[in-house]
Amino acid sequence: MNIEERLSLNQMTTDPWTLEQTVAACVRQQISWIAVWRHKLDALGVKQSARMIKDAGLSVSSLCRGGFFSAPTAAERTAQIADNRRAIEEAAELGALCLVLVCGPARGQTLDEARQAVADGIAEIAPHARACGVRLGIEPLHPMYAAERSVIVTLKQANDMTAALADDHVGVVIDVFHLWWDPEVYREIERARGHILGFHVSDWPVPLPGILTGRAMMGDGVIELRRLRRAVEEAGYAGPIEVEIFNEAIWKNCGDDLLTTMKQRFGKCV
Amino acid sequence: MNIEERLSLNQMTTDPWTLEQTVAACVRQQISWIAVWRHKLDALGVKQSARMIKDAGLSVSSLCRGGFFSAPTAAERTAQIADNRRAIEEAAELGALCLVLVCGPARGQTLDEARQAVADGIAEIAPHARACGVRLGIEPLHPMYAAERSVIVTLKQANDMTAALADDHVGVVIDVFHLWWDPEVYREIERARGHILGFHVSDWPVPLPGILTGRAMMGDGVIELRRLRRAVEEAGYAGPIEVEIFNEAIWKNCGDDLLTTMKQRFGKCV
Repeated sequence: MNIEERLSLNQMTTDPWTLEQTVAACVRQQISWIAVWRHKLDALGVKQSARMIKDAGLSVSSLCRGGFFSAPTAAERTAQIADNRRAIEEAAELGALCLVLVCGPARGQTLDEARQAVADGIAEIAPHARACGVRLGIEPLHPMYAAERSVIVTLKQANDMTAALADDHVGVVIDVFHLWWDPEVYREIERARGHILGFHVSDWPVPLPGILTGRAMMGDGVIELRRLRRAVEEAGYAGPIEVEIFNEAIWKNCGDDLLTTMKQRFGKCV
Repeated sequence: MNIEERLSLNQMTTDPWTLEQTVAACVRQQISWIAVWRHKLDALGVKQSARMIKDAGLSVSSLCRGGFFSAPTAAERTAQIADNRRAIEEAAELGALCLVLVCGPARGQTLDEARQAVADGIAEIAPHARACGVRLGIEPLHPMYAAERSVIVTLKQANDMTAALADDHVGVVIDVFHLWWDPEVYREIERARGHILGFHVSDWPVPLPGILTGRAMMGDGVIELRRLRRAVEEAGYAGPIEVEIFNEAIWKNCGDDLLTTMKQRFGKCV
């Protein structure tokens, strides 16, 4: 695949749209990959959504998201594991290259306990992932999300966890917005060789407009996108590159012009 | 010093107050340490401020802040170095235990270049710090400030830089708000043994009310404060502990009740 063919539209970039609308826009814009969010599958159901995506000629780079393993009670933990199993089955139905794991916050546990709960949770669902032919991508999130979304905050952690699990259906997802600041990131990208399951791009604007919806279009921020993309390629990753932007202003302008800009910036900046 | 005697009020916690007001409140509240911000010295000037603090019987845990070494032009860089030299002289005048260095963002340079500029800048000002009897404390900031305030974002980086500079007037400042999320933090606290120049506490509330003013009173967030304090002590630090809270709601309620609460929470949570 050349670089243009690797662009995958993550549904969160076009959040105001239904899955149907985003699929149609991908077809119009000759984008051949899509990253699907689970809550967007509700309208049509998983089977019909999968068929629609396939009929449109699209491939699914990832399903977002499993994870959130740490829970304050055993019952909630069991429910989370069950939900992760369903997510694995959905990813299989969609033919997604991986299920993205957003590992979850501590929720009343200590950080050490929560991190252990993540490792235990992934170990528990990994056999089901293997049985379904689905790979699990541990996505480290930016440390500013440590209290609310993920106790896994560096690529080193995700690599260490992948190494400890030693399961060829478990790997890492590298998102530049989450990892660009890390002095160890290039060393860890090299260390991720052989188990990189996804690569996500956006940008970090200055100032950041918000904690949850602060991401920018590539080129509108300070992230060294090309250096990171090359590092990921040098580490052997040649798969789809997801554009995943959470940004209120971009959502307000959701439309084909946005996707045209996205494609231009993808070529120019990534 | 017992733990109560180690409490230092960082002026940013009582930001609506002048230095005079904060000093008077420390006396009323029997707080024997204060951390001073440079812009708060403007009203009375450095000499008179230093005399007032001394006459009130207070000691200065730190002066905030030097740093911001990376600059897009040589002229700006030179100006920054000159400003850091003045900050060192002010810290000496105040008898501050250290000058806190907020190292600055990249400002158009790459992260690697900016990080080198920080190391070069500290090396350049270190002889003046030694001559003035002032220690320089590299404060790693939370990665969410990497684009706007500091390319130094982990204690490992600050420790590595301290080791490379090999100057007994250069060390690190450990702030729990900036570092609590880091899987390496306890290892790096131990590694900081012998060059810990300050310890700052606050808390990380959920949800975070804002990027710049999101900090909470100790006990109102998720940071494992006692574990971190003990780790810093086990690494040999027995100096003042600064309470540094940037928070709009706390500033609105700035007064003796706030300081009473702060002292209670300090005893209970730190």
